[in-house]
Amino acid sequence: MLHKLFTAFIMLSVLNISAQKTLPIYLDDTKPTEQRIEDALSKMTLEEKIAMVHAQSKFSSPGVPRLGIPENWMTDGPHGIRPEVKWDEWQQAEWTNDSCIAFPALTALSATWNKNMSLLYGKSLGEEARYRNKNVILGPGINIYRSPLNGRNFEYMGEDPFLAGEMVVPYIEGVQSNGVAACVKHFALNNQETNRHGVNVIVDDRALYEIYLPAFKAAVQKANVWAVMGSYNKYKGLQGCHNSFLLQDILRKEWSFDGAVVADWGGVHNTKESIYNGLDMEFGTWTDGLTWGASNAYDNYYMAKPYLDLIKSGEVGTKELDEKIRNILRLIFRTNMDRNRPWGSFGTAEHAVAARNIAEEGIVLLKNKEALLPLDIKKYKKIAVIGENAIKMMTVGGGSSSLKARYEISPLQGLQERIGAEAEIIYARGYVGDASGNYNGVVSGQNLTENRSAEELKNEALKIAKDADVVLFIGGLNKSDFQDSEGNDRKELELPYGQNELISELAKVNKNLVYVNISGNAVAMPWEKEVPAIVQGWFLGSESGSALAAVLLGDVNPSGKLTFTFPVALKDNAAHAYKAFPGGDEVTYKESIFVGYRWHEKEKIKPLFPFGYGLSYTSFQYSDLKADKTKITPNDKITFSLTIKNTGKRDGAEIVQLYISDVKSSLPRPIKELKGFDKVFLKVGEEKTVTFTIDKEALSFFNDKEHQWIAEPGDFQALIGASSADIKAKINFSLK
Amino acid sequence: MLHKLFTAFIMLSVLNISAQKTLPIYLDDTKPTEQRIEDALSKMTLEEKIAMVHAQSKFSSPGVPRLGIPENWMTDGPHGIRPEVKWDEWQQAEWTNDSCIAFPALTALSATWNKNMSLLYGKSLGEEARYRNKNVILGPGINIYRSPLNGRNFEYMGEDPFLAGEMVVPYIEGVQSNGVAACVKHFALNNQETNRHGVNVIVDDRALYEIYLPAFKAAVQKANVWAVMGSYNKYKGLQGCHNSFLLQDILRKEWSFDGAVVADWGGVHNTKESIYNGLDMEFGTWTDGLTWGASNAYDNYYMAKPYLDLIKSGEVGTKELDEKIRNILRLIFRTNMDRNRPWGSFGTAEHAVAARNIAEEGIVLLKNKEALLPLDIKKYKKIAVIGENAIKMMTVGGGSSSLKARYEISPLQGLQERIGAEAEIIYARGYVGDASGNYNGVVSGQNLTENRSAEELKNEALKIAKDADVVLFIGGLNKSDFQDSEGNDRKELELPYGQNELISELAKVNKNLVYVNISGNAVAMPWEKEVPAIVQGWFLGSESGSALAAVLLGDVNPSGKLTFTFPVALKDNAAHAYKAFPGGDEVTYKESIFVGYRWHEKEKIKPLFPFGYGLSYTSFQYSDLKADKTKITPNDKITFSLTIKNTGKRDGAEIVQLYISDVKSSLPRPIKELKGFDKVFLKVGEEKTVTFTIDKEALSFFNDKEHQWIAEPGDFQALIGASSADIKAKINFSLK
Repeated sequence: MLHKLFTAFIMLSVLNISAQKTLPIYLDDTKPTEQRIEDALSKMTLEEKIAMVHAQSKFSSPGVPRLGIPENWMTDGPHGIRPEVKWDEWQQAEWTNDSCIAFPALTALSATWNKNMSLLYGKSLGEEARYRNKNVILGPGINIYRSPLNGRNFEYMGEDPFLAGEMVVPYIEGVQSNGVAACVKHFALNNQETNRHGVNVIVDDRALYEIYLPAFKAAVQKANVWAVMGSYNKYKGLQGCHNSFLLQDILRKEWSFDGAVVADWGGVHNTKESIYNGLDMEFGTWTDGLTWGASNAYDNYYMAKPYLDLIKSGEVGTKELDEKIRNILRLIFRTNMDRNRPWGSFGTAEHAVAARNIAEEGIVLLKNKEALLPLDIKKYKKIAVIGENAIKMMTVGGGSSSLKARYEISPLQGLQERIGAEAEIIYARGYVGDASGNYNGVVSGQNLTENRSAEELKNEALKIAKDADVVLFIGGLNKSDFQDSEGNDRKELELPYGQNELISELAKVNKNLVYVNISGNAVAMPWEKEVPAIVQGWFLGSESGSALAAVLLGDVNPSGKLTFTFPVALKDNAAHAYKAFPGGDEVTYKESIFVGYRWHEKEKIKPLFPFGYGLSYTSFQYSDLKADKTKITPNDKITFSLTIKNTGKRDGAEIVQLYISDVKSSLPRPIKELKGFDKVFLKVGEEKTVTFTIDKEALSFFNDKEHQWIAEPGDFQALIGASSADIKAKINFSLK
Repeated sequence: MLHKLFTAFIMLSVLNISAQKTLPIYLDDTKPTEQRIEDALSKMTLEEKIAMVHAQSKFSSPGVPRLGIPENWMTDGPHGIRPEVKWDEWQQAEWTNDSCIAFPALTALSATWNKNMSLLYGKSLGEEARYRNKNVILGPGINIYRSPLNGRNFEYMGEDPFLAGEMVVPYIEGVQSNGVAACVKHFALNNQETNRHGVNVIVDDRALYEIYLPAFKAAVQKANVWAVMGSYNKYKGLQGCHNSFLLQDILRKEWSFDGAVVADWGGVHNTKESIYNGLDMEFGTWTDGLTWGASNAYDNYYMAKPYLDLIKSGEVGTKELDEKIRNILRLIFRTNMDRNRPWGSFGTAEHAVAARNIAEEGIVLLKNKEALLPLDIKKYKKIAVIGENAIKMMTVGGGSSSLKARYEISPLQGLQERIGAEAEIIYARGYVGDASGNYNGVVSGQNLTENRSAEELKNEALKIAKDADVVLFIGGLNKSDFQDSEGNDRKELELPYGQNELISELAKVNKNLVYVNISGNAVAMPWEKEVPAIVQGWFLGSESGSALAAVLLGDVNPSGKLTFTFPVALKDNAAHAYKAFPGGDEVTYKESIFVGYRWHEKEKIKPLFPFGYGLSYTSFQYSDLKADKTKITPNDKITFSLTIKNTGKRDGAEIVQLYISDVKSSLPRPIKELKGFDKVFLKVGEEKTVTFTIDKEALSFFNDKEHQWIAEPGDFQALIGASSADIKAKINFSLK
C-alpha cells in the first residue's frame, strides 16, 4: 500500500531533511547538463524511472514529482497547437483558451522554398506551444512523398530529400529557440497510411540512405533536434518504434542522436523490443483485454508494469532503462527546466501574419494562359465562385493535425473581403463532398444543399458560371477519409465528388475559368487543356482565404514551386508503375532511389507539372552561369554563380534551382538531383547574382556494398533551372 | 469578427516585426518590477485588460497571450492542492497525476503554536502548488473563531488575533518562497456560513481593528502576502469583495497592500462597486439569466463585458482598470514570471513527513486522569476502537478544502499498523453519521451497518467495550453538512448522531475510556466527568491515523494547545450570550472585543477547556520570572525572562504564553490578552530560559474615537501562563 511505502520513506526523509538544504547538482543551473542528468538519475527510484518511460495520459508523461522534475506535455501537431483533450480521451476538454493560429500545412511551407519562412514557421509555432505550456511539438513530418495517394502527404515536405532536409532545419531551430522540442516524424519509411501498423517496408539501402533518411539526418545533425518519433510501419520485420536498425544502428550510432525517441501513439507492440531497440517513451498504446480508458490502462503499457516485472525478476537489467532516462532528462532540461527560455505567445496577430506570409509564398501558380490572373476586377465585374472548398473549414479534419483554430478565413470569405463592393461575387457549391463540414463566407439564407440533388447543384453552378465574367472553381481534396487524411490513403489520383465532369462543363460555359486546387497531393487534371488558369492552393490554415485572394487578385505575386511531381496518370508514378503501393503485409520499394522526378526523368515520362515548377506574374531572365573552377578535389568546394533578372512588370521572386548530374557512375544514379536552391526577390528590372557552393557531399551517392557515401572521381554537370524540367544553363566540372 | 480585428493588427504587425527583436522592458529580468509593470501595461489593449480582471474558467484567469504574459491558475485550498476540475465545472477532470498530500486543517496547525511548523506547512504546500503549476493558493483562512457553530472554523486559526497573526506569517512566507502566492481569506468579517452571501456584519471599530483585522494586517505587513481574497458577507452594506472601507481605506491606504485582491468564488454582485471599491479579479460569478456553464458565461461577469461597455460609453474611465492590471501584473511577475523560483515537488514522502509532524504537534491532550494515556499495550491487550470517525476519510468533504489525497491513514488504520500483533484491536462503528463516506482500516468482511439498526450498532459497541481492556472512542464531527462544513453552520454545540448517549453508556461498561474528538470546533461534553482521557484530534490530513496512534501510544508526547475556548454550553460563548449569531440579514457583534477567552474572563465563566490549554505526558516547572526593567517609555522595549524545566519522565514541549493586562484604561479592555508565546522543547530534566520582548504595540488598544492605536501610560501586568486559565507568574511594570 502506498502509505506503507511512504512510512519507510518518512523514516529516511526525517533524517535527510536538514541535509537537503543545499542545492543538489541536478537543480544547479550552473552545472553542465550531463552532470545534472547523472545526478538526477542517481536519485531516482526504479519505479520513478519506469513511470517516466511511458505516458500518464493521452499527451503527457510524468516527471519526477519528488525531485521537482516537471512533466512532459506533448502536442500535435505540425501545423498548430492542438486543443486540450480530456485526460484519457481524444475528446476535447472544451477549454476556451486554446484556440490557436493554424499555420499552412507543411506541403505549403515546403513550396515556399524559403528557409526564412521555415524559421518563421517554427519560431511562431514554438511560441504558441510555449505559451500553452507544451514542451514537445509532435512534428514536423518529413516522410518522403512516394505516391500521390499517401493520405498524409499534406503533412510532409515533398519528394526530394535535399529540399526536405534544407527546409526542416530552420523549422526545428525556430521551434527549439523557444525551449520547446521539435519531434521529427515518422522515423522512418512511413510513406503510406494503408495498413500502417502492419506493413513491413522492404527497401534497399541506397533508397533508404539517399531518399528516405537524409531529411531526418539533417534534423539530427544540422538542427540538433531534441526528439524523434518512431513510425508505425515495420522495417526488416520490426516496428519503427522499436526498430534496432533505425533507432540504434542509424539514429544513435551513425548519427549520434542524443535526444528522446518518442513512440507514435499506439506504435508500441512489444516490451522487450521496446527495451532493447531504442525506444525511450511509450505513448498512446491500447492494450488488449482492457477497456479503453480504464484507470489502470497506463500501468499495462508495454514499458510500464511489464517492464518493471522483467527487471524485478532479473530477466532484464537496468542499463537500458537508465539510458532512456538520460535521454528523457536531457529533453526536460532542454525544455521545461531551461530557466532562460522565452515565455511564448499565443493566437497572436503576429502569428497570423506569419501564417499568411507563409501561405502567400507557398501558393503555386501552375498555369496562366493569356494572363487571366491576376484577376482584373475592373474588367470582371461579375465573379462566379464555385466549389465546396471555397467555403469549407480545412483546419478541422485530416487526423492528428486537426486544429481548433482561432479563426479560419475560407477562400470565398477572403475573396468577399478583398473585393468588397468592387465586383459582384456569386457563389454556388456545385457539389457536396463533406455534408457535415463547417463553412465560412456563405451569404446567409443561401440554399447550399438542402433537398437538392447533385444534378440541381451542378446546374445551378453552370448557370451562375455562364452569367459570370469569370469563374473561380475552388475544389480539390478536403481532408475527409480517403481525401488527404491520416489513417487511410486516397483511392485514386482523380478528383472526387464529380469535380472533373463539373470542371469540364464549366469550361464549356465560361472560358475565363480559374481552377484552384486545395490539396496536399497531386491530382489528375484530365481537363487541364480546357482550363486557362490553375493554382495550387494547399491547406493554408487560418489565413487561407486572404492569402488566396491576395494571389488571385495580384496583391501578392505567386512565388511557390512544387515540391513533388504532378503525374498525368497514376501509372506514371514510380511506385505505381511497379504496382508497389500500398502492398499488403509488406511493400517493396521496387523503384529504389527513383522517386518523383528521378523516375520521370529516368523513364522520360512527361509529368503534368514537374518538380520545382511554378509560375509568376512576372518573368525572369537567367544568364552568366559560371563556376569558380573546373576541377575540384574531395576536400575542395566549387562555387557556381549566375545572374537572375526580373524582366517583367511586377516585383516578384524566383526560386533558382541547382541540380547535379553525375555523368558516369559505378552504380545507377538519377539523371540529376537537387543540390541547391535560392529564392531571390527582385523588383521590376532588378538583377542579382546568385551563388551556390557545393562540396563532394553534393556529388556523393550511397554505396550500399561498402555502406558509405562515396563521391566518385569523374565528370559532373551543374544544371541551373527554374524547375527540374526547365534547365536554363549547364556547366561541366570534374572531381579528381 | 475576430479575423477582421486581426487584419488590422496584421498591417501594423508587419511593420513592427523587425522592430520587436530587442527585448522589451517588461520581459527584461534585469529591470525593476515596477518599471516592467508599467511597460507591460502600456502595451496592453483595453480588451486585454478587461480579460485579465475576470476568470476564464473555474480556477484560471487569462494572461496576455499576445505579450507572452502567462495565465493565473488558482488552487484550493489551505490544506492541500485541489485536484484538477473541468474547465467550467466543479466536477473533477479525472486526471491521475493530481493526488496530493493532505495537510492537517489550519486549526491543527495553529494548535501547534509552533511557527516552524507553520513555515514547514507553507513551504511544503507551496512546493505542491508549484509542481502542479498553480501560482496562487486560495488560503490560508484566518477569520477569527467567534462562535463554535461556524461551519468553517476548522479552516481557520482560532480565536486570538495575535496568535493567528503570528502563525500566518511563516505559512505565507513558506508558500511564497516557491514563487506561489498565498491568498489570505476571507477579508473580512466572514465569521459564519449562515446567509454568508447576504449577511451584513455590524461591528464596532474596536472589535474590527483589535480582533478581526490583526491577522490580516500581519499577513500584509509582516509576510508581504501577494493576494487577499474578499469575503462574501457585507460590511457597512457593501459586499466584502467590493467593499471600499475594507479594500481601499484599510487594505490599500492604511496597510499599503500592493498585491491583488481576488474575489471569493461568486462573491461579486455589482460592476461599479467592483470597479471603484478595490476588487482586482473576479472569479466564480454566476450570472442571472444564463445557463450555468454557458459558453459566454464569463463574458457576462460583472467585470467583463459590462465593465467594457461602461468604459466604451465613457461612463467609467480607465484609471481604476489600470490600477487593477498593475496589481495583477505584479502578482504574475512575482509568481509565474519569476525565472528563479524553484520547481516544487508533489505528493512526496517529505511532505508526508511534514504533514505528520504538524499533525503530531497539533494534537491536544485535554484530559488524562490517572495517566490512562499513553496506552500501555503491554497491559491493555484487548483494545476496543469505537466510532465512525475511526474509519472515515476526512480529507474529502467540508467544502472547497476537500481534497483528492494520495492516501489517508484513518485512526483505526493508524492504530492497527502501530500496534500490529502486540494487542488485539476490535472495531465497532457504534453509530452511522455519514453512510456514504469512504472508509479505511476496516477488517474485510466486517458488517458495519448493513441491515442493522442504530440500537444494534450501539449494543455491539457496548458489548465489545465491555469485553475490552481499554476503549478508544473516536468520534466528533465529520465534515458533512452542518458538521464542520463550508456553506452551513452547525446547529448546536452537541455531538451529533447520538454520540453523547453512546459515550455515557460506554463509560459505564468500561472505565478505561479514551475519547478522541475529531473536529475543527469545540463540542459540548456533558459526559466529561465520566471519561478519564480526552484528546482533541482535529482533521489531520493524510497522516491522520499515524499521528493519532503515535500520540495515543506515546511515541509522541502531545504538545498542542487549544487556540479557542471550549465552552461548557453554547450560552457561555459571547456571541450566543447576546443571541448575536447567526443573525438574519444582518448580524451585530454585540460582544465587541470580548471574543473567546476575553469574554469568559470578563464574565468569569469557567470554560470546559480554556484557550491555550493542553496537557503533556510530562510535567513542566515555571520559575524565575523577571523583567529587565520596571518602567518603559513609548520608544522602549521590555524583556521578560523565566526558567522552564521538564520535571517529568518524558521528553516534551511546553507552550509558554505571555499575556498582558492593562491595569487601568480609558476604554474597556479585556482582562488580559495574548502578546507572546514560545514552544520550548525540553528533554527530561532539561531547563531553558524563555524570553519575551515587547514594546508599546503589545500594550496598545484601538481608540475608535481617534481612529488610532494607543498605548496609555500607566500600570501593566505581564502574566506567564501554561494556558489562559493557568497563570504561573505575574510581574508588574509601567509605561511612562
